[in-house]
Amino acid sequence: MTEPVTTVTHPFDAAVELDYTGDGRFTGHTSPAYNNMVGPFGGATAATLLHAVELHPDRLGAPLSITVNFAGPITDGPFDITARAVRTNRTNQHWSLELTQDGVVATTATAVFGLRRDTWTDTEDERPTTPQPADLERTDFPEFIMWPRNYDMRFVEGDVPGEGASESPSSTSTLWLRDEPARPLDYAALTSMCDAFYPRVFLRKGQYVPAGTVSFTVYFHADDAEIAAQGTDHVLATAHTARFGRGYFDQHAQLWGTDGTLLATSQQIVYFK
Amino acid sequence: MTEPVTTVTHPFDAAVELDYTGDGRFTGHTSPAYNNMVGPFGGATAATLLHAVELHPDRLGAPLSITVNFAGPITDGPFDITARAVRTNRTNQHWSLELTQDGVVATTATAVFGLRRDTWTDTEDERPTTPQPADLERTDFPEFIMWPRNYDMRFVEGDVPGEGASESPSSTSTLWLRDEPARPLDYAALTSMCDAFYPRVFLRKGQYVPAGTVSFTVYFHADDAEIAAQGTDHVLATAHTARFGRGYFDQHAQLWGTDGTLLATSQQIVYFK
Repeated sequence: MTEPVTTVTHPFDAAVELDYTGDGRFTGHTSPAYNNMVGPFGGATAATLLHAVELHPDRLGAPLSITVNFAGPITDGPFDITARAVRTNRTNQHWSLELTQDGVVATTATAVFGLRRDTWTDTEDERPTTPQPADLERTDFPEFIMWPRNYDMRFVEGDVPGEGASESPSSTSTLWLRDEPARPLDYAALTSMCDAFYPRVFLRKGQYVPAGTVSFTVYFHADDAEIAAQGTDHVLATAHTARFGRGYFDQHAQLWGTDGTLLATSQQIVYFK
Repeated sequence: MTEPVTTVTHPFDAAVELDYTGDGRFTGHTSPAYNNMVGPFGGATAATLLHAVELHPDRLGAPLSITVNFAGPITDGPFDITARAVRTNRTNQHWSLELTQDGVVATTATAVFGLRRDTWTDTEDERPTTPQPADLERTDFPEFIMWPRNYDMRFVEGDVPGEGASESPSSTSTLWLRDEPARPLDYAALTSMCDAFYPRVFLRKGQYVPAGTVSFTVYFHADDAEIAAQGTDHVLATAHTARFGRGYFDQHAQLWGTDGTLLATSQQIVYFK
């Protein structure tokens, strides 16, 4: 007697799942597993928008960049995405996307996909030197936030401030990060991971304050082979803020592969009180 | 007899000049003074798109971020811009823009404008320590590129590679930069200045190669008062690349005011051969 084959959908695949209804239109549904304090985790939303382009029949090549603007709240439930290839060139393609609920725009995005060619290559920045994931403790996030449960996070520095935490002179967090349960890396997962840093103002102030991403950009440095080579290993993720001021701060992040490949660089501007 | 009053339009104001024709539509014209090797300087195009929102009758507040995607070439001549307020919230407003010529999309953009509130503020990054502009030589760019003539650029490091230049181990350029002739800083000028770095690959390779910006983002940290305080002084601009690979590289930039204010952070992903 052979064991029955059970196919279990990974929570991340369920979160970014879309139905194509033709003419650049998709329908999806928020995933309770990726809930944030209010509405879905922005990384999952960004990944879903990227995935819409991946699924589009006219898509050319692999992601080069995506910018996601969080224009308004997303309510738990179904949503619609429209993806429009604004211009297709010989080696790249420019996309405009909108996520709506009941016809109201909640999120907009632009993305560039393209073909890569062999050129001179060099990674000028250096990956931070850190202990290995197995030598670090896994961080538990507060129970009222769902989405971090889908990540195995092991902080090297700048762990989530606990009760009675003091202010920190540095906004830098560096951590090893992978999907929980483990899942082979792809561009959508990498997009989400670029947003997996808790707000830098929490770290500096040693406390939680209202904060939310306004605009979020990912530049994909890794090609298909480098994404595949990463497999299910932890990614080394590091982020910091240059300036907090008058209601907004920036965040600059790098995500590195286990073999030292710079997989992605990412930026976001965040509202805070 | 009194002297006649002559009002001379600054070349930058001429470059970003737009006519509003109603319903979110504008017409403009490329400026020969801001020509690049092929088509207009991307910084001027980005500034023009930002300026369209500034001129729009429904605009709320000041710029927080803009992302510009250079989808195709812009031909010398007239162009159309459409600016649509996708969503207006209580304190911020999300914009989608397209620049077209003869109905063909050449450039897309998204922008976030908003109101600023007083909050805790801190600039965590430090401005590079450099000599003063007056103690540095002004750089002359090659004659066949027009747009740099509109800038007074004084390099601290990473000057434009001359004939017979060797490869550089660093992609970092740091320079003092202002409009030429001098012009009081505004958000549009700051946007353009964020793109005023020549391609980082030129510096690393010690030679010119085909290169062009694909996507460009500016986060505005300065508020109206800080922009006004800068006046016509030089801005300290610094940029570097994290990774060059398979046809694309990233560029991360900071623009600092003379008084140590971090005015803007900016990123771009650039195609190269």
